Amino acid sequence: MDISTIIGLILGAIFLVWGIMESGLISSYWDFASVMITLGGTFASTLASYPMKNFLNTVNVVKKAFVYKEVFPDEVIGEIINLANIARKEGLLALEEYSEDLQDDFLKKGIMLIVDGTDPELVRNILETELTFLEERHTEGQSIFETMASFAPAFGMIGTLIGLINMLRTIDDTSSIGPNMSVALVTTFYGSVLANVVFLPLANKLKIRSKSEILVKELMVEGLLSIQAGENPRIIEEKLKTFIPPDARVNYKQKLEREGA
Amino acid sequence: MDISTIIGLILGAIFLVWGIMESGLISSYWDFASVMITLGGTFASTLASYPMKNFLNTVNVVKKAFVYKEVFPDEVIGEIINLANIARKEGLLALEEYSEDLQDDFLKKGIMLIVDGTDPELVRNILETELTFLEERHTEGQSIFETMASFAPAFGMIGTLIGLINMLRTIDDTSSIGPNMSVALVTTFYGSVLANVVFLPLANKLKIRSKSEILVKELMVEGLLSIQAGENPRIIEEKLKTFIPPDARVNYKQKLEREGA
Amino acid sequence: MDISTIIGLILGAIFLVWGIMESGLISSYWDFASVMITLGGTFASTLASYPMKNFLNTVNVVKKAFVYKEVFPDEVIGEIINLANIARKEGLLALEEYSEDLQDDFLKKGIMLIVDGTDPELVRNILETELTFLEERHTEGQSIFETMASFAPAFGMIGTLIGLINMLRTIDDTSSIGPNMSVALVTTFYGSVLANVVFLPLANKLKIRSKSEILVKELMVEGLLSIQAGENPRIIEEKLKTFIPPDARVNYKQKLEREGA
Amino acid sequence: MDISTIIGLILGAIFLVWGIMESGLISSYWDFASVMITLGGTFASTLASYPMKNFLNTVNVVKKAFVYKEVFPDEVIGEIINLANIARKEGLLALEEYSEDLQDDFLKKGIMLIVDGTDPELVRNILETELTFLEERHTEGQSIFETMASFAPAFGMIGTLIGLINMLRTIDDTSSIGPNMSVALVTTFYGSVLANVVFLPLANKLKIRSKSEILVKELMVEGLLSIQAGENPRIIEEKLKTFIPPDARVNYKQKLEREGA
Amino acid sequence: MDISTIIGLILGAIFLVWGIMESGLISSYWDFASVMITLGGTFASTLASYPMKNFLNTVNVVKKAFVYKEVFPDEVIGEIINLANIARKEGLLALEEYSEDLQDDFLKKGIMLIVDGTDPELVRNILETELTFLEERHTEGQSIFETMASFAPAFGMIGTLIGLINMLRTIDDTSSIGPNMSVALVTTFYGSVLANVVFLPLANKLKIRSKSEILVKELMVEGLLSIQAGENPRIIEEKLKTFIPPDARVNYKQKLEREGA
Repeated sequence: MDISTIIGLILGAIFLVWGIMESGLISSYWDFASVMITLGGTFASTLASYPMKNFLNTVNVVKKAFVYKEVFPDEVIGEIINLANIARKEGLLALEEYSEDLQDDFLKKGIMLIVDGTDPELVRNILETELTFLEERHTEGQSIFETMASFAPAFGMIGTLIGLINMLRTIDDTSSIGPNMSVALVTTFYGSVLANVVFLPLANKLKIRSKSEILVKELMVEGLLSIQAGENPRIIEEKLKTFIPPDARVNYKQKLEREGA
Repeated sequence: MDISTIIGLILGAIFLVWGIMESGLISSYWDFASVMITLGGTFASTLASYPMKNFLNTVNVVKKAFVYKEVFPDEVIGEIINLANIARKEGLLALEEYSEDLQDDFLKKGIMLIVDGTDPELVRNILETELTFLEERHTEGQSIFETMASFAPAFGMIGTLIGLINMLRTIDDTSSIGPNMSVALVTTFYGSVLANVVFLPLANKLKIRSKSEILVKELMVEGLLSIQAGENPRIIEEKLKTFIPPDARVNYKQKLEREGA
Repeated sequence: MDISTIIGLILGAIFLVWGIMESGLISSYWDFASVMITLGGTFASTLASYPMKNFLNTVNVVKKAFVYKEVFPDEVIGEIINLANIARKEGLLALEEYSEDLQDDFLKKGIMLIVDGTDPELVRNILETELTFLEERHTEGQSIFETMASFAPAFGMIGTLIGLINMLRTIDDTSSIGPNMSVALVTTFYGSVLANVVFLPLANKLKIRSKSEILVKELMVEGLLSIQAGENPRIIEEKLKTFIPPDARVNYKQKLEREGA
Repeated sequence: MDISTIIGLILGAIFLVWGIMESGLISSYWDFASVMITLGGTFASTLASYPMKNFLNTVNVVKKAFVYKEVFPDEVIGEIINLANIARKEGLLALEEYSEDLQDDFLKKGIMLIVDGTDPELVRNILETELTFLEERHTEGQSIFETMASFAPAFGMIGTLIGLINMLRTIDDTSSIGPNMSVALVTTFYGSVLANVVFLPLANKLKIRSKSEILVKELMVEGLLSIQAGENPRIIEEKLKTFIPPDARVNYKQKLEREGA
Repeated sequence: MDISTIIGLILGAIFLVWGIMESGLISSYWDFASVMITLGGTFASTLASYPMKNFLNTVNVVKKAFVYKEVFPDEVIGEIINLANIARKEGLLALEEYSEDLQDDFLKKGIMLIVDGTDPELVRNILETELTFLEERHTEGQSIFETMASFAPAFGMIGTLIGLINMLRTIDDTSSIGPNMSVALVTTFYGSVLANVVFLPLANKLKIRSKSEILVKELMVEGLLSIQAGENPRIIEEKLKTFIPPDARVNYKQKLEREGA
């Protein structure tokens, strides 16, 4: 589970509420019509921008931003070196049995392709096409939130325009200008908060998470092809460690030693 | 037919009208001169930006955003595996007869090229050039709406400037400032609504639709070349399934089983 | 001649003038100092941005946006198939005589290279380098208008700032604030109109025109190389038709039939 | 240590404080609630945008922007020519002893790979993958500051909106409008200053520093591969000098002569 | 010397001063505190964004934007054809003597490499690496001005915020609001003018100049490699002329004829 997004969202809400209550009442920030225009408009225009299927998928995408089992690149390297050692000692076919315990479907599929004796060129082709389209599907999920982040301030401004046009059309006494203007500005406030506290952070987080998921899968492709080519496990380790930061590599070595101990 | 765009557009209109009527009259949002400046100006500058032919084509492009027969990638995979099986059992020439029932012109053309014994390199060359230019034509359609989406708020602001300049030039009594300002802001309102409720969602939708159409056609190219190369239908299936999301693949298998049953 | 740009510019002017006269006087939109700041500033900063030669070339570029003989891709395909047939029947050298009637210098140059027996690799190299630099020169022309489109609103705002600073410095009676503010806003109006009614549409149009000119020339390169390689005219036709939209292809066939009849 | 960033930040603060005190009191720029909204909001949304690990890493990234030992490309060239001469005279294995004195881990690793007799293709592969991911990690560090630079003005505006909404809701006497508006604008001030004085310069600096670090490492890869290929030290020098500006090359020659003297 | 930038800068200043004096006093545009905030802040944040070395180099970059000896591509083509003729008649070694009269260091270096009998692949490699890094150094120079152009309006706005906050905090009599607001707006004016009249045009100009310098150098690389390959001077001419616009080619021919006469 990804704690930073949850803490960030809660902290953002706390800072805003606290800032509001320093000099005003939180109740003056609730205006049903403003919610309808800003959130409703953002919702409607995003719906119009995407096929129904992609739009409904957003719920899954949000869930994924919060709940997911992180796969650590250094663990994957360990796993691949294990596989390489097995392949060296017992042959490629021995990987089949071992792969049944693996939790990652992508790695499993790669091993099945190798065990089936698929041509290396075709293995690379299949796995990289899979990666390309996985990346594209990730991009789609992020883009929905980026679309929302660009619509929210626009509808906030539209709501404020509506408030101003309505107010200015019929100014009876000047004393009502202030409160009416105040209500009109609430939609701009909603739009900015939605974009900067909710949609943009979620879009950013999905982008980062996608990158690290793709990195792990690239590691797997590189490792699987090296195993199929019968490369030396030590050289495979050397190659795969270039994918991760130097300090993670040090930790990785220590861990192997501890585990080996 | 694409229901989400229609629902989105209608919902957007409802939210706005409802938001307006909460605190004002819908009638004060109708101003003919404002329509002329915002919509007319957007129309004129877009016309000046494109050759007449492309501009008139916009109607077709809009129609396409609403009415179209979606081609599902998993169905295309099924069709290509069928073709691969026929080619395996009865030879490439047998595809000709079968292709007459196909509805997709691109797939049909590809089969004709294979049946004619065209060089594989040339088949790939012809089909990929076709795809490149199809993608370019799609981009042109989207770009008209993106152009409109950028002109609309600009002409909205120009209209408001005209209203302000006219009003400020001759201020008789201060009581008329409010209502005049209100009218001046209506064009900014028009510009923002046109861009965010109509043009941007349509441009987005066309972009997404183009992507999925290109994806299906890339699937066809890959499949046709594999058929021509005489590859095993099982391997073709494996290759093509990498183009679609894992869960669509599961559905696809179930469907084949149901159909086979 | 390109009618859409002219109609678009005229329509834009009509909508604006009409919108102005609905509630004010067109005469209040003429202010010589504002013209100097907005148009003069845009002119000066654009001049400072480009070498003198490129800047003076703008006149040619504008002329080209209005007056040009469109070359239709389908006619070029017809011409190349003709050339391919001649080359097939009478040999490559026979193309020399035929090429004298051609109006397109690029096509003529390509034929001369083929007739001279230049190495195919070199022919492709020469023609594609020519295309690359043609595209770059086109981009330069567009970029001048894009530069103007970004400077115009900036100088509009600078003019309004000057108006405001001058006015606020010496407020005698509040009754003069309105008219002075009105004059100050005129430069912002100029800047927005120049950018959105003139410069951006011209930049867009040049971009589109460049694209279609490059497309036609890419067609020629592909066709010339196929002729040099002695390919079958029917296959050349098949290859070249992928460059144009399916419906243009149908028209093209009909035309050839009519002409053949 | 990088003096320009420190001087720049201090100068920026001095100019602002001085500008403020010209016409006002520095004390009116301290408002705790404004700090909470602007800095707190930026902090919270940035936290929500990144995994906890990356967020905490920001401290290291900041430290790196200030304190680092610059590696000069011309010194690296000298070092590589030294290595090339040793390899020429005493063989590749002699590099091992020499490499123990080297301070750069990347160069050391490259030499170890060469000494181990690794395949040249694999050496290039390993070193370039390492570079690719180093660049990616650099980009991550910069992007945190760019994210902060985009959130800061947004939360500044949100804070001002809160101030305005609170103030306008309950206008008792018009004399309090000025001071309240003044407080409301302080958050916009905070947001702009944070973005333009702190976050953007740091993001820029990290980008430049990353570029020059990558350049030095590319130099090393090129040099190491040339050494492994047994190229002539004079040609290696000629190749590597193309990486640095002509005037740095002149200095480099003089230095070698002085050192040789 | 590049006359257009100087004329553009002077014209821009004239238009602004003239526009100001139409309705106000030039003296009210001088405010020392505003200069400190806008120019000082831009200076400080740019300093913080770049290593000291790059920042100090800006003076050279500015000088280069005004004073430089333009190298005309058609003259370079003539020079290369001359070299090609010499190489044909007297052998590659004869180029050494001739190259001593050349003024361009890049061309000279290329000839030295050829005369030394360097491998063609290595010659291309060395010259293109040199070009890549030359282009990168050019980009650095431009980016400093682009950075300044983005900081200037930001500090303009910060200055105006300071003015407003100071003024609003202590409103004694409403008659002082106008003049104070006027002073506050002066920084926004400074920021816009600095960006649009000075920094952006200089950044644009450096970009254009870099492009044409790179073009000339690409011409030289192509020509030098063709000379080394012993190609026919007529074919070299044909190849190199594709780098320049058709009308420059015509002039080029006429010139050669005149010179030959």
